[in-house]
Amino acid sequence: MQLLEEKIAQCGMILPGDVLKVDSFLNHQIDISLYQAMGQEFARRFAGRPINKILTIEASGIGLACITAQYFHNAPVVFAKKNKSSNVGSDFYTAQVASYTHGVTYDILVSKSYLAPGDHVLIIDDFLANGKAVQGLKAILEFAGATLEGVGIAVEKGFQPGGQDLRRAGIPLESLAIVEHMDADTGEIVFRH
Amino acid sequence: MQLLEEKIAQCGMILPGDVLKVDSFLNHQIDISLYQAMGQEFARRFAGRPINKILTIEASGIGLACITAQYFHNAPVVFAKKNKSSNVGSDFYTAQVASYTHGVTYDILVSKSYLAPGDHVLIIDDFLANGKAVQGLKAILEFAGATLEGVGIAVEKGFQPGGQDLRRAGIPLESLAIVEHMDADTGEIVFRH
Repeated sequence: MQLLEEKIAQCGMILPGDVLKVDSFLNHQIDISLYQAMGQEFARRFAGRPINKILTIEASGIGLACITAQYFHNAPVVFAKKNKSSNVGSDFYTAQVASYTHGVTYDILVSKSYLAPGDHVLIIDDFLANGKAVQGLKAILEFAGATLEGVGIAVEKGFQPGGQDLRRAGIPLESLAIVEHMDADTGEIVFRH
Repeated sequence: MQLLEEKIAQCGMILPGDVLKVDSFLNHQIDISLYQAMGQEFARRFAGRPINKILTIEASGIGLACITAQYFHNAPVVFAKKNKSSNVGSDFYTAQVASYTHGVTYDILVSKSYLAPGDHVLIIDDFLANGKAVQGLKAILEFAGATLEGVGIAVEKGFQPGGQDLRRAGIPLESLAIVEHMDADTGEIVFRH
């Protein structure tokens, strides 16, 4: 998606450790017009799929999921919560997620009330790197018996394995910008097309 | 706001400890059409104020802030992050917030890049009880030299002091539903009008 790539090229910052900092428009300060364009693009790419619910994970996926839902007939958004305590009772679907960025493992949870076998779900998130968060959300959908219709990502780090793993598993994955290569020394960012 | 009060009366659950559970439509699963109506109502109530930025706090304020921003000419949204480590460097405005719900104190932080003296800010959040989160956001705006134009809340617990404190301080506060009284035994919820 050209608009997003231009914004990344213009405002993104490459930090040591393969960190792409896009928090001026994507995940700390948010450019609402850009989110709207991204939501419309997700709707175009997943057109024809019977999506009736959008699933994301706190915190930075929530805004994009809510704006995007407007282009899916105001489908309800459910966001998985990150949890530190392991004792959450039996009312939740849970999965473990290992965070690449923060070097920790945490539980994610979704109330059993908000996912059901009749649900056809689009997963939305801001970043895809190793794909652990999406794998955790996918596991939760399987526990619920819901159907995963696709995964929509703002920025995929194409040089990390998350995207490849999902595509090989046959999951419809649409990343609006795929960073093929980035160089912290030169500031160069190359996108996959 | 009648639509929100009806939804709370219909779907809200009162739990022991003065907890009002509204996670079927407000802060775990999200009713996007309701959020849109709430965003329009905030725009109506804060009409005429020169709001150019919306500030909220992760996680459950983000979705409402993003939908609401659309009715403020797509003003950028900035969300404060909650932080466990106290060492965040000098690039952030920080404030301490004592959480009523979770019985802990945490730091909130906003990058200095995203708030400036020229900003006229509307704070949006899903809940107002003791008001500690809003007081923390207000402190951050003061550090930045930005102007607080108002505070927009989905659900205020009118029997806790947060709302009264803000109104006494002369801050324009608009809560779309104010719970005056609720009874866990009978399930009764009385709204202030």
